[in-house]
Amino acid sequence: MKLFSVHFSHVQFPFILCGSLFILAVAKLGFHRAAYLSSIFPESCLLIVVGVFLSLVVHWTGAHNDFVFHPTTFFLYLLPPIMLEAAFCLHDRAVWENLGTILVFACLGTVLNTFIIAPVLFLFNDAGAFGPLAQFGFAQCLLFAALISAVDPVAVLAIFEEINVNSALYFLVFGESLLNDAVTVVLYRMMEVFVVMPQILPKEIFKGFCSFFIVSFGGVLIGLGFGAFTSYLTRFTNHVRVVEPLIVFSGAYFSYLSAECFEMSGIISIICCGIVISQYAFANISRKSHTVVVCCSKLVSSTCDCVIFLFLGMELTEFISSLVTGSQKVNLSFVLSSLLLCLLARFFIVVLFSYLLNMGRVRKISRQEQFIMGYGGLRGAVCFSLVKLLDPHTVPEKNTMMTATLCIIFFTVFVQGISMKPLVRALKIKMKEKKEPTMNEAINSNLLDHVMSGVEEVILGGHKGGSSVANHVTSVGLVGGM
Amino acid sequence: MKLFSVHFSHVQFPFILCGSLFILAVAKLGFHRAAYLSSIFPESCLLIVVGVFLSLVVHWTGAHNDFVFHPTTFFLYLLPPIMLEAAFCLHDRAVWENLGTILVFACLGTVLNTFIIAPVLFLFNDAGAFGPLAQFGFAQCLLFAALISAVDPVAVLAIFEEINVNSALYFLVFGESLLNDAVTVVLYRMMEVFVVMPQILPKEIFKGFCSFFIVSFGGVLIGLGFGAFTSYLTRFTNHVRVVEPLIVFSGAYFSYLSAECFEMSGIISIICCGIVISQYAFANISRKSHTVVVCCSKLVSSTCDCVIFLFLGMELTEFISSLVTGSQKVNLSFVLSSLLLCLLARFFIVVLFSYLLNMGRVRKISRQEQFIMGYGGLRGAVCFSLVKLLDPHTVPEKNTMMTATLCIIFFTVFVQGISMKPLVRALKIKMKEKKEPTMNEAINSNLLDHVMSGVEEVILGGHKGGSSVANHVTSVGLVGGM
Repeated sequence: MKLFSVHFSHVQFPFILCGSLFILAVAKLGFHRAAYLSSIFPESCLLIVVGVFLSLVVHWTGAHNDFVFHPTTFFLYLLPPIMLEAAFCLHDRAVWENLGTILVFACLGTVLNTFIIAPVLFLFNDAGAFGPLAQFGFAQCLLFAALISAVDPVAVLAIFEEINVNSALYFLVFGESLLNDAVTVVLYRMMEVFVVMPQILPKEIFKGFCSFFIVSFGGVLIGLGFGAFTSYLTRFTNHVRVVEPLIVFSGAYFSYLSAECFEMSGIISIICCGIVISQYAFANISRKSHTVVVCCSKLVSSTCDCVIFLFLGMELTEFISSLVTGSQKVNLSFVLSSLLLCLLARFFIVVLFSYLLNMGRVRKISRQEQFIMGYGGLRGAVCFSLVKLLDPHTVPEKNTMMTATLCIIFFTVFVQGISMKPLVRALKIKMKEKKEPTMNEAINSNLLDHVMSGVEEVILGGHKGGSSVANHVTSVGLVGGM
Repeated sequence: MKLFSVHFSHVQFPFILCGSLFILAVAKLGFHRAAYLSSIFPESCLLIVVGVFLSLVVHWTGAHNDFVFHPTTFFLYLLPPIMLEAAFCLHDRAVWENLGTILVFACLGTVLNTFIIAPVLFLFNDAGAFGPLAQFGFAQCLLFAALISAVDPVAVLAIFEEINVNSALYFLVFGESLLNDAVTVVLYRMMEVFVVMPQILPKEIFKGFCSFFIVSFGGVLIGLGFGAFTSYLTRFTNHVRVVEPLIVFSGAYFSYLSAECFEMSGIISIICCGIVISQYAFANISRKSHTVVVCCSKLVSSTCDCVIFLFLGMELTEFISSLVTGSQKVNLSFVLSSLLLCLLARFFIVVLFSYLLNMGRVRKISRQEQFIMGYGGLRGAVCFSLVKLLDPHTVPEKNTMMTATLCIIFFTVFVQGISMKPLVRALKIKMKEKKEPTMNEAINSNLLDHVMSGVEEVILGGHKGGSSVANHVTSVGLVGGM
């Protein structure tokens, strides 16, 4: 019998994960206290850098098989909390006012993006720009274009949350990144089928077109259904407050999983569910449960966000080490042309659509805002997960595509992320209004808060007995009346 | 290309998990609304029943390999949040006033329990009570006694939280269940070694004795260290409030994992860490972060609690189906004798120690309370995890032991859990005082709350500019002054 022994292997996975979150929290702390650093770099850069260090530690402990970015982990566990938290924050007038524009960019924009990038890549390939050995068929170009076209909600959130642009611009970019999921899913699946088909039939294209409506409206229906059911359940919880957060979270997550199970858009589903919940269920649950739901979802989503960027950092190390050892070669012309194409196609579409949409819009999208919208078309973990899911048997150039996707993501995070803030300042973009409430407003909201909590307690207290009611009424009267 | 398809297998695991949590939340809701049911049965019974249904569903979907109770999952993921939440609630005067008594029961009580149960079982076995084929050596009896002696914190929490006994009695039982972890760990490991040794040397027993101090005080040190470091870090977070919950949670969890890594008591470590955090870190972090930490830990711990009982319910189905198919036989005499022995040994120890301790105690432990302490020595998932960890090569009677443990746990939850409330009422045990605050107290605490939040905002607002400070001071003055 040993008095003292170390038994690392059985705690290895949670130990490294929790340790890296702890280190990350400390790094964040240091990063924000070093005001100079945080004024230049976005936080996602820090996260990726920590991820790089982490991957060195992981390699050293030999646990690198446990710490690989799995698309399944990303889509099933890391993405849903971030989307739910985003949905809770969508109750902004700017969203509904710009919904048409957002949908045009999300649907038509993404499709057009794909059909600009793919033919050009194919032409480049035909001209021999990617080397004599490259094997890009047209369907494969389409597949790559489909997955690289989607603006990424996680990346957009991470960068745009820090720069505080006006909410119309913010929601134009962020809303697009959320709602393009259905288009991306459908395009990706269509192209996956086309890659293995000898010939593309018009019937199949029509099917893909129908499929888009099934995927998106199916997601909307499932989300609304679960949202309504969850909200309905919260009508009966006034004596069992403790289950309220569990009902809300499991209901929302269940809507995501159900949509994924029926191959519909999980993102759209959980967003619809989250909007319904924040409109109806939040009115039924107690104030405390509301705080728990909002705060927990914020905590979990920011943790998931961190984990995603940590993983990207680890992929960066992997990538660099494979470059150094020479086990993988970078097709530089492919990387550069796809990066340039992404930027140019995006700018072209933003300018074109803005011009067309501005004819009907009351609040025009200004030139400067168009620039930020084009430049803010960030790519992130969604693309990377999709490219990782490709089957190397049907897509022989999977590795080339993966390298290009990674390069585009890192360009997004480092170059675009870092330059976004100075650009916003240089272009004199209208910022978010941060209004201190006036004294009158502060007193009013304070008063209302107290009256509400008083009324709540009176209603609930009424079931128990008269004395507590009287007590609360007096106390409300005293505090509320000031 | 298909327009509509179902793709269940890749969402299967989270789907079933989240679905069962959702169903569980709804079941809880119905259970508490049916006041008659919830007045008779403790919630853990409901959870186990839902677990039984769940296991039928899981069997039907064919996912039963994903839903097996793994001791590792239990110790590394499900137990720590429950323990952390318990630690946050330990700042009660009753804990510190009764600490000596709690420690005596936790340490000496558990050891004595083991050394009462083991020899009697061995004697029974020698007399042929367990059948002619039973292969219980003395070391194996000791091993079984060591794992079955530990009062389980999860089971105690689940049952005692609902019956509202006075806090001295509550913490006597609950505190014992928390702090006996070190003894259990050491006894279990010692006996595991003894089982494979041809002869037990006095040196080894002395080593075990030393090991107890290393395991417990090591846990205390690691917990205090991490708690202090985490609390120290929170001194610097006043501009990065968002990382506070992450620091607290990852710090506490890290202390648990570190202790486990060095084979010390993780439970004791996370409890010490939690106590330090609730004393010091909670004073540094913002009110909002405090709410997040407390509420999140409550939410997560109650979810883990649910999952544990769900798993126990699934094990129950497994057990019953193996009985029905005849693939496993129950050694009824072993089950009954170990159950009886557990109860009798527990009662004997409680009465003996209470008699001795009452000589020195100011607040004597009454006869009625002794009965509830004895009867409240519930067993749960900790025992079950330990018995599952046994190696069938060195312990040929592992299956018999597992059956007996399961039976004792279900006896605990159903018989003891259901009869606890009527017994507490019949014995006229002093209940927890639920005092409505007087009007004066309510106004005072309200006033203090407002002043505190005002002071907080003034201090923080001071960094930003004068106007907001003036605003808040006025508002505090208005609200506080009433």
